[in-house]
Amino acid sequence: MMRTRPLRVALLGCGVVGSEVTRIITTQADDLAARIGAPIELAGIAVRRPNRVREGIPAELLTTDATALVKRGDIDVVVEVIGGIEPVRTLITTAFEHGASVVSANKALLAADGANLHARAAEHGVDLYYEAAVAGAIPLIRPLRESLAGDKVNRVLGIVNGTTNFILDKMDSTGAGYSEALDEATALGYAEADPTADVEGFDAAAKAAILAGIAFHTRVTIDDVHREGLTEVTAADIASAKKMGCTVKLLAICERTPDGRSVTARVHPAMIPLSHPLASVREAYNAVFVEAEAAGRLMFYGPGAGGAPTASAVLGDLVAACRNKLAATTGAGESAYTQLPVSPMGDVVTRYHISLDVADKPGVLAQVATVFAEHDVSIDTVRQQGRNQGSGDEAAVVQGGGEASLVVVTHRAKDADLSATVASLRTLDTVRGVASIMRVEGE
Amino acid sequence: MMRTRPLRVALLGCGVVGSEVTRIITTQADDLAARIGAPIELAGIAVRRPNRVREGIPAELLTTDATALVKRGDIDVVVEVIGGIEPVRTLITTAFEHGASVVSANKALLAADGANLHARAAEHGVDLYYEAAVAGAIPLIRPLRESLAGDKVNRVLGIVNGTTNFILDKMDSTGAGYSEALDEATALGYAEADPTADVEGFDAAAKAAILAGIAFHTRVTIDDVHREGLTEVTAADIASAKKMGCTVKLLAICERTPDGRSVTARVHPAMIPLSHPLASVREAYNAVFVEAEAAGRLMFYGPGAGGAPTASAVLGDLVAACRNKLAATTGAGESAYTQLPVSPMGDVVTRYHISLDVADKPGVLAQVATVFAEHDVSIDTVRQQGRNQGSGDEAAVVQGGGEASLVVVTHRAKDADLSATVASLRTLDTVRGVASIMRVEGE
Repeated sequence: MMRTRPLRVALLGCGVVGSEVTRIITTQADDLAARIGAPIELAGIAVRRPNRVREGIPAELLTTDATALVKRGDIDVVVEVIGGIEPVRTLITTAFEHGASVVSANKALLAADGANLHARAAEHGVDLYYEAAVAGAIPLIRPLRESLAGDKVNRVLGIVNGTTNFILDKMDSTGAGYSEALDEATALGYAEADPTADVEGFDAAAKAAILAGIAFHTRVTIDDVHREGLTEVTAADIASAKKMGCTVKLLAICERTPDGRSVTARVHPAMIPLSHPLASVREAYNAVFVEAEAAGRLMFYGPGAGGAPTASAVLGDLVAACRNKLAATTGAGESAYTQLPVSPMGDVVTRYHISLDVADKPGVLAQVATVFAEHDVSIDTVRQQGRNQGSGDEAAVVQGGGEASLVVVTHRAKDADLSATVASLRTLDTVRGVASIMRVEGE
Repeated sequence: MMRTRPLRVALLGCGVVGSEVTRIITTQADDLAARIGAPIELAGIAVRRPNRVREGIPAELLTTDATALVKRGDIDVVVEVIGGIEPVRTLITTAFEHGASVVSANKALLAADGANLHARAAEHGVDLYYEAAVAGAIPLIRPLRESLAGDKVNRVLGIVNGTTNFILDKMDSTGAGYSEALDEATALGYAEADPTADVEGFDAAAKAAILAGIAFHTRVTIDDVHREGLTEVTAADIASAKKMGCTVKLLAICERTPDGRSVTARVHPAMIPLSHPLASVREAYNAVFVEAEAAGRLMFYGPGAGGAPTASAVLGDLVAACRNKLAATTGAGESAYTQLPVSPMGDVVTRYHISLDVADKPGVLAQVATVFAEHDVSIDTVRQQGRNQGSGDEAAVVQGGGEASLVVVTHRAKDADLSATVASLRTLDTVRGVASIMRVEGE
């Protein structure tokens, strides 16, 4: 029962992802038609520079007037791969108003204003899909929203930024410092000329907001996500992690708070045990752990970025949106019925690895331990070593003149209590400095 | 916009999975209603033994008349967790005839007769979902069918049977033989009293058939799947694998043939490199690798069996089927438009690890190498060692009196050519026996 009228698709943006989307729509036309039940017709492609040479892109489809394209009225689905907030938000809502469903890869927009977009889509009876916005080709949004629709997700823990994982993987495998590893990532095309969005965690925070909202059926925006980048991670931190049988990853973590009445979402570097499946995620790959009440622990792994993988996710959504158009229905929309508040970082409960530079004299450990106890932060292990012993000599406990270093690993404690502990430690004469604080996850 | 009329659900079977499904429907009623848009009402539960004590199961819902239940006419969705071919097939088709969608966890039935069931569901305008039939809670069917609907899947490679993975993991980690590991699996409840379906690969073969059909948009039944169990895997095989930097897993492998004109599906033990993500799948966990043209390599990991994980998959399907009922639509049905034939095992191309017991005298290696060459099977490496050297002494090449062992690892070759090679080797006087043949995958 193949319909004759094709489904008309408008493409906004024709960069790396857009040209790959065009290529697949063109070369896999028969397969897509069979899977949808009707052929797809590419009705127009909005670009900024129409005169740029684009191999394999039909020049007659190019236009600089994106607004006119989404207003045509005969477009079934708009695919948006431009990115950024405006003018994209206006283009998408205009598309809704003219009856088009939208497939977007725009994590920034979804993380900033997803609720509004979902409401506008529902108002006009069209779909809004965005599998490509999180972790590239890895199916995550659909499994969370549909496969786990009958389960209760308690935790999402993942590596959702390929650039930073590449950098940390290099630091771990070569002993390089952050700058050196970033230079290599840039040279190999894994980091952009301005790497801020990746290395400061903005990209991962947007994805965390989207995942938390879907996983917990509530609204989370990027402003709700606690964010720390990896620019302050040192070779010494990586070496400390190794000593603990851990590695360092930039993690996006979305959890229900212990009382179940709120959720938290955060992005920061953390140590995770080498035995944890996320520890073996190398190079620019992404992987996300989902812990659900009935399903248990699931992991989704794959390439988190790149033109072809992102296009794969876009095309999956496009097929779904087209199928819904044919059936005159829509897929699952926003599901934010729980209205759980997002708690601040201080409410997060986790473990900590703290490196202190201390005076090398008797009584320091007792003083430090007292401060932890005063703030209800229970210590799991302490390692003390002379300042010049180097990181390789694990057993050394040297108390000569000058400085020593003290490494404290805590039991689970509230982030606010840990912060208060560190503030108190800084006031001690015997504590010369707090060299690093890193959370320990995945245990 | 909550509808007042609840969606009526009938449950067929109330064992481990069924009682967990009932528990979730009862305890998570509000969440399910919010996600569906209408409440679920459990209308009846068909069981064989109604007088058995079932904690938390409303006794008034129990019936022994499954046929009457699916014929009621007011049932929106039938959940089938009985298993086996008949009477379940008749019950499911009867449910379709009476307007009910069906959610099933029945791999055997789907692998034997999926095309017929899909056709009957389509005929009556209802859904047939079966995420729980493959790899328990791991979302696989929906990602393959929907998330990758715009991509071309070339290969599916997975550990889809928890019992056999537990056995092989034990053999690998403890050096135990097959029987000993099976005993432990039985004692811990990972293997059934009659473990045939698991250890002979029938369970995995059914899953391979389902996965191949969905991945390649064609029809594959369990009879199309080449199947070898793990009962002949020895401690020596595991030790040989370790020498190669590999471990042994029972894999389900679905591939397009190199010319793209057909597909193959097979289940057998195979060596895979320790660096492959599937190698680190421990105990009874499942994991499936999917290689797609645009998406690249994806992996899905999680618990492959058990009441709660299977119930999670069932509930996800139930929410989808209920949502579709509310919207008076159906989800994606069978997509077998490619009609690719399934090639026999002889057409599969892979690598092989062959252990031979040979006469310990000069010229044997040359003779053996000649046989491989005559059958177009190219040798990658050969390792020769004296019979009594033990498996630990890797470098030993001993040619005393009596017997020696010869381990040959081939380059990629056709399975038919390898079989012919082995048949020829058996005719050589100097080859006393073929101790083992194992395929090498995941490279």
